[in-house]
Amino acid sequence: MKHVETLRWVGDVDGCLRLIDQTRLPVEFAEIDCRTVESVWEAIKMLRVRGAPAIGIAAAYGVCVGLQTARDADEATRFARLDEVTEYLASSRPTAVNLFWALERMKRAAPAVRGQASTDLAERLLAEARAIHEEDRKICRAIGRHGAGLLADGQGVLTHCNAGGLATADYGTALAVIFAAAESGKNLHVFADETRPLLQGARLTAWELQQRGIDVTLICDSMAAAVMREGRIQAVVTGADRIAANGDVANKIGTYGVALLAAAHQIPFYVAAPTSTFDLSLPSGEGIPIEQRDPREITHGFGCRTAPEGIHVYNPAFDVTPADRMAAIICERGIIQPVTRERIAQVLSMPQEGG
Amino acid sequence: MKHVETLRWVGDVDGCLRLIDQTRLPVEFAEIDCRTVESVWEAIKMLRVRGAPAIGIAAAYGVCVGLQTARDADEATRFARLDEVTEYLASSRPTAVNLFWALERMKRAAPAVRGQASTDLAERLLAEARAIHEEDRKICRAIGRHGAGLLADGQGVLTHCNAGGLATADYGTALAVIFAAAESGKNLHVFADETRPLLQGARLTAWELQQRGIDVTLICDSMAAAVMREGRIQAVVTGADRIAANGDVANKIGTYGVALLAAAHQIPFYVAAPTSTFDLSLPSGEGIPIEQRDPREITHGFGCRTAPEGIHVYNPAFDVTPADRMAAIICERGIIQPVTRERIAQVLSMPQEGG
Repeated sequence: MKHVETLRWVGDVDGCLRLIDQTRLPVEFAEIDCRTVESVWEAIKMLRVRGAPAIGIAAAYGVCVGLQTARDADEATRFARLDEVTEYLASSRPTAVNLFWALERMKRAAPAVRGQASTDLAERLLAEARAIHEEDRKICRAIGRHGAGLLADGQGVLTHCNAGGLATADYGTALAVIFAAAESGKNLHVFADETRPLLQGARLTAWELQQRGIDVTLICDSMAAAVMREGRIQAVVTGADRIAANGDVANKIGTYGVALLAAAHQIPFYVAAPTSTFDLSLPSGEGIPIEQRDPREITHGFGCRTAPEGIHVYNPAFDVTPADRMAAIICERGIIQPVTRERIAQVLSMPQEGG
Repeated sequence: MKHVETLRWVGDVDGCLRLIDQTRLPVEFAEIDCRTVESVWEAIKMLRVRGAPAIGIAAAYGVCVGLQTARDADEATRFARLDEVTEYLASSRPTAVNLFWALERMKRAAPAVRGQASTDLAERLLAEARAIHEEDRKICRAIGRHGAGLLADGQGVLTHCNAGGLATADYGTALAVIFAAAESGKNLHVFADETRPLLQGARLTAWELQQRGIDVTLICDSMAAAVMREGRIQAVVTGADRIAANGDVANKIGTYGVALLAAAHQIPFYVAAPTSTFDLSLPSGEGIPIEQRDPREITHGFGCRTAPEGIHVYNPAFDVTPADRMAAIICERGIIQPVTRERIAQVLSMPQEGG
């Protein structure tokens, strides 16, 4: 794969967040520099950067950008600005818990430099954001390493949405499993659901797999069942945006349907996600807030109107797949199997392995 | 609903087939006049007219158009032209059996006027096409009448693709059931799957329901499972393009998945189709040919490219839903329930009721 970085910090503490504008892929490869916290918020909201882990990293760097305007202020103002910036960034998208996890981690990093120079806070925050970023790289590799054994040579693998390098620091979560299996010499044939309404599967997953030379076939979401029935899928792997304590998974709309279809064809359904995706404060998926998005994503999605004027639209960005539909959750600490509250608690309390 | 006619014959035997160009709906309402058999073939192939019953009617009129060029020829040439024209029209789309059924019926009508004037053949064929057209109107009404009782006041009903007035002479098959239930005073809330890749649900079904004042919500195909889980769907009704002797149904890609999702949520799944959709020569759905369509429908569907260049695409136009997933098939002769070979044979051998 030609080396592309989903997002990166450019320069020192006075630098900016540079990210690939994913809304323009695959037609155009364009990067944008976010020099204000508003531009970071907009990039997350508009899905220029998307995927739960990448949103977390972008938000962490967004805090650094946001604090730049308070560099010459007194300490109280700087810390007030930190609260303001994290609260603001948290309002960009409600479902992916990695966003809140990363912002919380940024806030927790700050008190250590109370009473020190303004530069120290800026440097401390940038160091924390870089750490989150670097850890995500290692986490993706660990997920790939753990999950690769679940896929066998010659298998067909279905994925939904994009949980690849573009959704993370690099390498991905669901796609990490596929990449790692392919790197270990297994030939896989990947089917990528296009993932309406915003076509992350068609635009991003198909592109990433093609870039890495992995055999990929693009299908519409409505074709997954037929392809399964034809015996062409032996495993399904997706990412996650939030996982409750019992293992219920919120992920891109359509994931739940794919899980049911997989069950109907006795195909194992795997979720791959870093442990930062778990929200143990929620006993089950019932409590996960589901973002509702602009109806125009469905009615005007491709630069032209494809539905009647004034039509009523329902456009949830995510759905919840119950834990009992999953064969396993793959995280950087290992494989959670069976997906039960007890096994989740056990794996999450294990010490983090080296990257 | 403002009166729109999916297709109609304009003029006498020298007339032409006028049809709504459904590829331009809902943005533009435009009719085209087909004055050559090639233009009828193209209209069917390109889905300007679509829906199994409407394809059959269009093809019947297409035979009339095709014979116009042989009006001054001798009888042998005229009958050779009839064979040529029917064979050509049969090559437009391979899955909907109504196409072959209508063409066969046109051919069977011709021998009665052997030895008579050229005009007699033209008039006999036009009369047969008009009969097929008029019968379809009555069939749609009968399907509505039989099926309406399956839906209860206050229910949510999901439909996939378009099996409405635009797929038939008027009134529809799946939508006939909804229209008839609504006309009998039941309040229904319809969810219309947008139906990728060509968005017949978004463009046509949503438009038809809106025109008729029926409460409709447009969703992406990938949202059906979530809407079912939310308890908002109590019945699913779709059309069919070909039904095997055992009840297996070929219909728009995605239908099979919807049937599995309905089963997972204990929601009855109904198919509504005229008896001309049955192909009793096929013991099961295994033998139904599945049309593969242009990959560009998926990669360039809306005037812009939405997938990487050179990506491999699988684009079947139809899938097959096994009979055991269906609660009933609704046809003009009554309700086939349970969907078994025996019950199908029984209903199909019943005398046709008056329209």
